[in-house]
Amino acid sequence: MWPFHTELASFAAGQDTPSEFLESCLACIAAHEADVGAFVHTNIEGAREAAARSTARWKAGKPLSLIDGMPVGIKDIVETIDMPTEMGSPLYKGWRSGRDAASVAALREAGAVIVGKTVTTEFAATFPAGTRNPWDKTRTPGGSSSGSAAGVAAGMISAGLGTQVVGSIVRPASFCGCVGFKPSVGALNRGGSHDALSQSADGALAASLEDAWNFCWAIAQRAGGDPGYPGLAGPQAMPGPTRPRALAVLETSGWAQASDDAKAAFAEAVARLRAAGVTLLDRRDNTLIEEIEAALTQARAVTDAVNAWESRWPLNTYREKDAGALSKFMLDRLKQAESMSIADYRSALAERTRIRGVYAKLAGIAEAVITLSATGAAPVGLHSTGNPIFAVAGSMLGVPAVSLPVLEVEDLPLGLQAMGFEQEDAALIGIAAWLRDILQREMT
Amino acid sequence: MWPFHTELASFAAGQDTPSEFLESCLACIAAHEADVGAFVHTNIEGAREAAARSTARWKAGKPLSLIDGMPVGIKDIVETIDMPTEMGSPLYKGWRSGRDAASVAALREAGAVIVGKTVTTEFAATFPAGTRNPWDKTRTPGGSSSGSAAGVAAGMISAGLGTQVVGSIVRPASFCGCVGFKPSVGALNRGGSHDALSQSADGALAASLEDAWNFCWAIAQRAGGDPGYPGLAGPQAMPGPTRPRALAVLETSGWAQASDDAKAAFAEAVARLRAAGVTLLDRRDNTLIEEIEAALTQARAVTDAVNAWESRWPLNTYREKDAGALSKFMLDRLKQAESMSIADYRSALAERTRIRGVYAKLAGIAEAVITLSATGAAPVGLHSTGNPIFAVAGSMLGVPAVSLPVLEVEDLPLGLQAMGFEQEDAALIGIAAWLRDILQREMT
Repeated sequence: MWPFHTELASFAAGQDTPSEFLESCLACIAAHEADVGAFVHTNIEGAREAAARSTARWKAGKPLSLIDGMPVGIKDIVETIDMPTEMGSPLYKGWRSGRDAASVAALREAGAVIVGKTVTTEFAATFPAGTRNPWDKTRTPGGSSSGSAAGVAAGMISAGLGTQVVGSIVRPASFCGCVGFKPSVGALNRGGSHDALSQSADGALAASLEDAWNFCWAIAQRAGGDPGYPGLAGPQAMPGPTRPRALAVLETSGWAQASDDAKAAFAEAVARLRAAGVTLLDRRDNTLIEEIEAALTQARAVTDAVNAWESRWPLNTYREKDAGALSKFMLDRLKQAESMSIADYRSALAERTRIRGVYAKLAGIAEAVITLSATGAAPVGLHSTGNPIFAVAGSMLGVPAVSLPVLEVEDLPLGLQAMGFEQEDAALIGIAAWLRDILQREMT
Repeated sequence: MWPFHTELASFAAGQDTPSEFLESCLACIAAHEADVGAFVHTNIEGAREAAARSTARWKAGKPLSLIDGMPVGIKDIVETIDMPTEMGSPLYKGWRSGRDAASVAALREAGAVIVGKTVTTEFAATFPAGTRNPWDKTRTPGGSSSGSAAGVAAGMISAGLGTQVVGSIVRPASFCGCVGFKPSVGALNRGGSHDALSQSADGALAASLEDAWNFCWAIAQRAGGDPGYPGLAGPQAMPGPTRPRALAVLETSGWAQASDDAKAAFAEAVARLRAAGVTLLDRRDNTLIEEIEAALTQARAVTDAVNAWESRWPLNTYREKDAGALSKFMLDRLKQAESMSIADYRSALAERTRIRGVYAKLAGIAEAVITLSATGAAPVGLHSTGNPIFAVAGSMLGVPAVSLPVLEVEDLPLGLQAMGFEQEDAALIGIAAWLRDILQREMT
């Protein structure tokens, strides 16, 4: 992986340039892309030109941002003016919107170097598109932000734009051993990003926590959050490590499906945090946490109902055009939607609001939550992007979530997930920085 | 005008058919469209086919909804699979999205007959596109939902889809003498409608209050509201007339700009309501109303700041393509956006939230608000769509608003506006029905 934030001092000192940095990434693309398949489209020439402009700005002492010159990838459900946006669907083969999405326009304004469009599953859901995990090419990189995670892990880009409505940032970050940051709902402007679901959020897959923060912060400053939302708030320089007094350990519905290895790795991390003086609360010693665990058993069912109703359109119009171009998963989701009434949807929304209210009470006793990011290492096979069960709680809650590559199972990466409170993203990042520092290890 | 709801009994009894009804509308198009210019595109053949299918359903005793067979128009910022979506901008000349918007898909599912795309100002803002007011063709029909209002007024359609973020439903309804219904923010799904601003709402211009309700209700049942919103709630059959005990009279910033004629017409209506036994409260006798009036003096400034920041994208990407294809208004809006920071936007949002909180207290003393819909009759000239000052309060508040064609000035229509409380649309419609019954008059 090629973290970008560690290069900033060298750029400023004239010891390194964004153009040279980009060439390192392009070398990784040349070496690994044929095997990994992180990209749907690339614009290498455009990236070299953008890097040259960034190099000139750094030489002039006038970088535009902390991501000026950062090589990035854009998940292929997000519009780009210079490349098609195909959404992992044959229905959008070669489709061009003729504009940049809000996030992409902001990234360009901040000086980022857009290398290409990264592979997504069909409409950012579950049907995979062949990307392989750089750690073991017989395994899935996870999804739906498959290409962004794999591209970061393979050193092709320092950060990739991702989106998550179930598990699409946290899961691939875990499987690919990179950082995943899903901000609060509404924190980044989704204009021109085809994930118009109420619990979907845009975020980052990145080579470092700093890169993830800088990437998201740069977008929010220039494009804001979703209309009506305050947008990601916090300082330009990533909040420094903040040691929490108390963390809540949530098992969620994932625990029953987690591998023994994964549970053991997590238990070891918990022991290290306890040794560092943090109070760790869980369902066995705290009735509020037990109440939250009970509420979160509904997270997947609520998510599926909400996503189905909200996907009724545009899936119904796609079916009218060509039902054969939709996967069975999408046709099943549409079938679920068409079995629902608006009253059913309102019930699901009400249940989501209730669960969010229960979770919010946690702020009185703990500064953040920790749990696993996935049930284990990336599974073998490319037919599925793996189990999103550990990520769905944060998605349904609308809270910020970070996956840190600090655990290891089967000689493969596994993420530790930290979750915070809605619109309190900066506080979570500070705690995540501390967790990273305490728990970090070098992957072999 | 051709109200549709009054035909339902005839359709059921086999005395009239949607195909015959459509022909009446098409005759109006043939007679008046050349002068009025309500449409950007029409699909007459498609409309006749849809009307024939509806006729067959009515004959079989199986209509799909209360708008099965209703001839409707779709504002041209809303996507349609069978016609281009040009948004009143040369940047979108001939553009086709290849799908129906959520609202359009719902209208088709409900059996509505889509006649054509109705003229919008540039990106639903202020730059007009030549539509003339059917009551006096030297005058503007208002905007931005110009073609939907003019088409209804000229008998070409029974209802048209509109959108409002400042005054784009209430103002043209007032100028064209039709009913305008802007539901609560989020009440109708805006997927595929290019008005992604936080206080924008989709709604209806219609030949009757019943048609407006049936049109919006049919959309919400099938496509819901915006993701995360409960969607327009209420009974299938429009709520019957409900006599309020107390109404608040709000002058808003519009009063100082209203014509003497308009003020006199409004005063006469107020007198009739008082004679009917309703308590009318205003700023002179009620301190809360004075507090609301004071808060609403900021409505236009808050709206402009919110809309500017939220329009930064996509206007910045359009400028990159061709700044010469944007009007001066749009370039000025972009300039305002680029003079703002995200902190400025958050301040505007906070002020909006504060004002909404002040207004919400009104529910304790009055069931609804009444005010004018516009400062007077439609102004002469096609270079401007008129003054939106009376509509901006309801837009900024996010509350439902109805414009009723029950006033008259200069032998031209003028709307009386009723505003309710957020997500309480059905209650407002019941009161509007009572106001209509008490105040209605026949235009000469």
